[in-house]
Amino acid sequence: MKSYEKTDPRIVVIGGGTGLSTMLRGLKRYSRNLTAIVTVADDGGGSGMLREELGMPPPGDIRSCLQALANTEPTMEALLGYRFTEGSLAGQSFGNLFLAALNGMSRSFDEAVLKMSEVLAVTGRVLPVSNEDIRLIAEFDDGSEIFGESNIARHKTEEDRSIRRVRLVPEHPGALPASLEAIEQAELLILGPGSLYTSIIPNLLVDGVAEAVACSDAVRVYVLNLMTQDGETERYAASDHIRALQRHAGGRKLFDYCLANSAPLSPVMLERYRETGSGPIVVDSAEIELLGVRVVSAPVADSASEMARHDPNALAQSLIALFRDKSHTRIFS
Amino acid sequence: MKSYEKTDPRIVVIGGGTGLSTMLRGLKRYSRNLTAIVTVADDGGGSGMLREELGMPPPGDIRSCLQALANTEPTMEALLGYRFTEGSLAGQSFGNLFLAALNGMSRSFDEAVLKMSEVLAVTGRVLPVSNEDIRLIAEFDDGSEIFGESNIARHKTEEDRSIRRVRLVPEHPGALPASLEAIEQAELLILGPGSLYTSIIPNLLVDGVAEAVACSDAVRVYVLNLMTQDGETERYAASDHIRALQRHAGGRKLFDYCLANSAPLSPVMLERYRETGSGPIVVDSAEIELLGVRVVSAPVADSASEMARHDPNALAQSLIALFRDKSHTRIFS
Repeated sequence: MKSYEKTDPRIVVIGGGTGLSTMLRGLKRYSRNLTAIVTVADDGGGSGMLREELGMPPPGDIRSCLQALANTEPTMEALLGYRFTEGSLAGQSFGNLFLAALNGMSRSFDEAVLKMSEVLAVTGRVLPVSNEDIRLIAEFDDGSEIFGESNIARHKTEEDRSIRRVRLVPEHPGALPASLEAIEQAELLILGPGSLYTSIIPNLLVDGVAEAVACSDAVRVYVLNLMTQDGETERYAASDHIRALQRHAGGRKLFDYCLANSAPLSPVMLERYRETGSGPIVVDSAEIELLGVRVVSAPVADSASEMARHDPNALAQSLIALFRDKSHTRIFS
Repeated sequence: MKSYEKTDPRIVVIGGGTGLSTMLRGLKRYSRNLTAIVTVADDGGGSGMLREELGMPPPGDIRSCLQALANTEPTMEALLGYRFTEGSLAGQSFGNLFLAALNGMSRSFDEAVLKMSEVLAVTGRVLPVSNEDIRLIAEFDDGSEIFGESNIARHKTEEDRSIRRVRLVPEHPGALPASLEAIEQAELLILGPGSLYTSIIPNLLVDGVAEAVACSDAVRVYVLNLMTQDGETERYAASDHIRALQRHAGGRKLFDYCLANSAPLSPVMLERYRETGSGPIVVDSAEIELLGVRVVSAPVADSASEMARHDPNALAQSLIALFRDKSHTRIFS
């Protein structure tokens, strides 16, 4: 056992997409005992190409988490984020190819992820939620069922429809045992931020994950997004997010706290997002409390960003403060 | 100046292909003051694809030299040599993609090679002979002129013809200044081993290289191949190799010693190569001496290999012994 394994809090974050990797950049300063459990249902862009051609799980979300946690030379860091601009590789990220090559050399996808972690001297670890080939199906408000994450994204924008529910194919893929174990041993367990139906919920549909989260005695926090998302959470109040999570987890209660932002948002960002049908999420605290969840507010948005982004340090600080406060209360109450 | 720059001999090797990288694996144990100057006229395979699609110099030969000189984790080493087996990446080596991504991030190809050297903690350095887009034209014994290294390779085997002469397009590409400088400062200067017309001679046709080699007061050694090569050096005695080199260098004398193998060759290898029209090179010492070159024999072949391969350690040892012997003689004579 490494020395920090006794001292640093055991933190597990579950999600996918930019929101997850942003948070990891902050959290790695507070704990080396950090596990990111990442969705593998994506099938678009460079990830989709590799998935299609090489029959591997989509590397994109995992690669960006590894990148966020890497402690490597600046050249390697820039390299991982490099995207080819020409030829048949156009749009493909070098980091994805890195993981694809390791996958070709390894017996399983999670072994490839582990090897990449070693090469990049990663703080903590990154686990695919499952080693299985998982696809997403979304049921929309027009009654249509759309197969595949990239088709779902298209249907949202082109048909201007909203997701009502998602499920996986296969319907009950097995979780990576190490992922379940990490959840069971977590002291601080974080869901989100990220696209509700396409980055967060797919993890909860993997066999055993929602149960493990529901049974955990960690301090469990749902990090609320800053903005609603067109086609996923249009006009959703905060409580609607929480209801959707619970509904996809068989009615289970998954967390005790909902961390909402209290910092002002950039007017430029708000204007830009308004054009795509997105707005700041209304935090309906009374409704949330009725669901058995406590609202915690903190200035965790990056107010200067022209994108809706959490500030990695502010978010990590707030989460750690909440953890210290609440784990202490629990121990002595 | 690093401490070894005073103590380790300044070695420069010029070539391309497997022969060059094999030699580097041995030489790096004897000097950290090691420079490989590498041909960039290849246009086939994975290198050719990247050259075509991304408009970059062909990375393959340079990548295998970097790999030979790398001092990195075993995972990274295996990764660099990994070849994709499926999809549009099939046959492409990860190391090539690595260099391609760095090239996309850099202002010039040699800058990309330098960055890769840093990431891989390379002993010594690898320099492309030129940053220019160089193609090879071969004149064959049937009078035909064939454009491009991969077409040349096809013409050799499919039409069963032999190269008589090669030239470059553009005809006088500029050398990388650092390559010329390295040659000027070399104490031990090595040409070959490798394909005579497609790996060694292209370097000599780059503007300034043959002149710099001819003017060098280093101990200059040509490492003779083990076997003749179908379509390139069929039925060539050792002296024919040397004549071809001099002919392509404007009649200049390029080296003082020719290092020939004296170890037995594997019968399995000999049989296999005989089928492709290749045989052991006859070392016609009297002819070679008439060209002003001294023959040095040493057991430098890997007798156990089923391919015609030099033994990296034996070759390096022989070269260093020759260098110590001859540089000493020169100083005191």
